[in-house]
Amino acid sequence: MADEPGTLSFAMVGGDGPHSYRHNSSYQAGVVASAKTLIGNAVAEIFDVNHLTTSSGSIGIADLGCSVGPNTFITVKNIIDSVELKCQSHGFGSQVLEFQVFFNDHVSNDFNTLFTSLPNDRHYFAAGVPGSFHGRLFPKASLHFVNASYALHWLSRVPKDVVDKQSPAWNKGRVYYTSAPNQVVEAYSAQFARDMESFFKARAQELVSGGLMTLVIPCLPVGTAPSQSPLVAVADLLGDCLLDMANVGLVIEDTVDSFNLPSYHPTPQELENLIKRNGCFEIVKLEPSGRAPVTKETAPNIQTYISHLRAALGGLLLEHFGVEIMDELFVRLTEKVANSSTLSPSSYRMVVDLFVLLQRKAA
Amino acid sequence: MADEPGTLSFAMVGGDGPHSYRHNSSYQAGVVASAKTLIGNAVAEIFDVNHLTTSSGSIGIADLGCSVGPNTFITVKNIIDSVELKCQSHGFGSQVLEFQVFFNDHVSNDFNTLFTSLPNDRHYFAAGVPGSFHGRLFPKASLHFVNASYALHWLSRVPKDVVDKQSPAWNKGRVYYTSAPNQVVEAYSAQFARDMESFFKARAQELVSGGLMTLVIPCLPVGTAPSQSPLVAVADLLGDCLLDMANVGLVIEDTVDSFNLPSYHPTPQELENLIKRNGCFEIVKLEPSGRAPVTKETAPNIQTYISHLRAALGGLLLEHFGVEIMDELFVRLTEKVANSSTLSPSSYRMVVDLFVLLQRKAA
Repeated sequence: MADEPGTLSFAMVGGDGPHSYRHNSSYQAGVVASAKTLIGNAVAEIFDVNHLTTSSGSIGIADLGCSVGPNTFITVKNIIDSVELKCQSHGFGSQVLEFQVFFNDHVSNDFNTLFTSLPNDRHYFAAGVPGSFHGRLFPKASLHFVNASYALHWLSRVPKDVVDKQSPAWNKGRVYYTSAPNQVVEAYSAQFARDMESFFKARAQELVSGGLMTLVIPCLPVGTAPSQSPLVAVADLLGDCLLDMANVGLVIEDTVDSFNLPSYHPTPQELENLIKRNGCFEIVKLEPSGRAPVTKETAPNIQTYISHLRAALGGLLLEHFGVEIMDELFVRLTEKVANSSTLSPSSYRMVVDLFVLLQRKAA
Repeated sequence: MADEPGTLSFAMVGGDGPHSYRHNSSYQAGVVASAKTLIGNAVAEIFDVNHLTTSSGSIGIADLGCSVGPNTFITVKNIIDSVELKCQSHGFGSQVLEFQVFFNDHVSNDFNTLFTSLPNDRHYFAAGVPGSFHGRLFPKASLHFVNASYALHWLSRVPKDVVDKQSPAWNKGRVYYTSAPNQVVEAYSAQFARDMESFFKARAQELVSGGLMTLVIPCLPVGTAPSQSPLVAVADLLGDCLLDMANVGLVIEDTVDSFNLPSYHPTPQELENLIKRNGCFEIVKLEPSGRAPVTKETAPNIQTYISHLRAALGGLLLEHFGVEIMDELFVRLTEKVANSSTLSPSSYRMVVDLFVLLQRKAA
């Protein structure tokens, strides 16, 4: 079960400190809140409780790319509450039902913090599962419900061509595909397609027939160029900061050239096509999660925005560039964001949070 | 699933440092090695592979009190190799079999280190399960094989009476039951009995009918007083060191009085009675694990012995007394052990490593 070379293992910033994901994930908490009703409805409408009477009576639930909480605990509680409600309405006593919840993330995730912050009043047996969700993580037909919120946009690796000096897709002077030539965008898109195929293939084996999967993925609206979306465009500013630092000798230019962010934001249509091409899942829903749009009043201030970015990207940047430049880098980035005419924090939500509800077809 | 007040959560020293359990567990590695053949034979003789054809084809294995490796990985590989061998000899293709292994220890265990050191060539899906094995950890009938090596002698808590100044079992001036009055020994023994009943009750629910459980427990031979066994007697020296330090003002005496080690070494007969009283398991084997006795040549030197003690007890001591006195305490203990006439390291193995093989009776 060794990973292939080039495969990345990275995680949100762990622990309990000021830069931790734990304290800088309120944006993702909004995502979780907006998915709550959608998940509840999904269980109410199509979760097959009759199925349970013939099995051992225990329900397997996995949250993939869970990080360290608290968002994952809220999602899991939501799923369990919904299943218990449905069972009660079908006359099953919920006291006989047992839930086993698997919290998954990369092996470098801070599972110690995750475990010590597990809710005391939980109604489930908890387990942590280290490893990439682009491969198999669980035995066949062992799960009834899988969730992945704000996780699938992470790639299993930086596309090979993007760091290959001989390739037309070499992404010199940039750290992302935002304002890059088509070849770079295509390399990212192709990597995402490969990763999604691996992901759906693995989940199709692990979920029971009829089992449900809910995904929330930050997508680009059709017709939006990456550079038009602030969430993606901020990578240009990050790249600029790194090049500035290379120019004054704080970083080696080659080190900047060899760094690229391993994530991708598909369009809803692109994702739908990949699910259909895989063929193992019925698409029950594929729609914007319906989160209230950010207004001038509810927009985070620049510091909050930067803290979120640091909690999400800090681990990757630190591993590549070393701890010494981190503070300086984020000070520079804060300035660049503040002075950017195109990148106002009040507009950085131009991605669509796509909610996808899938049901495992009969094998 | 909150623990009751007084329940302890402690773990072997984590990480990768000089005092870590990871680098100071060669003694326990000997325990694992000596159990290898016994576990292999148990699977060969009574593990019911025919059972598997009717289930989902995945085997659930749990190692309870696993700490951080490497010993737990060796045990798990041994179990899986044995099951695969048996399946092959019965004509089942082992390629269709999937294993899910649950590594369990207290929530304060260093699961991050455990996960990053998982063998790359493993043939199983790995999960970490935080929590006390004195309570439920897994869904009903979800496990086929449970192992606990050198784990069950840890109690869920210090017996209440031992720290109660009003009780005849108050253990003033000592940190263990080694040379204590009968009331103290009885309080420890009663706590062990309660803990074992909880343990067997929980495991009986989690194991499938016919499922196996192997235990290795350091026991006192019948007729051996605790003070005659160096493994237990060393606690007297530890207590002496702490009192010495209280006398020179390095520790507060009350803090020493309120500290007691939460472990107990039963006799084989005592353990057998508890298993029978519980009634859920058939005793297939209950015998010394047959490890070669330590000779003058193979005895660890004092430094190795102290390092093992520190890896095992360091976490508990640190939590109670603070980090400041740790180095001093173990320097003093090393001296006391070196100068002890009754406690020669070459004889500290006078406990019996009892190997117990249990089979879950039909429910």
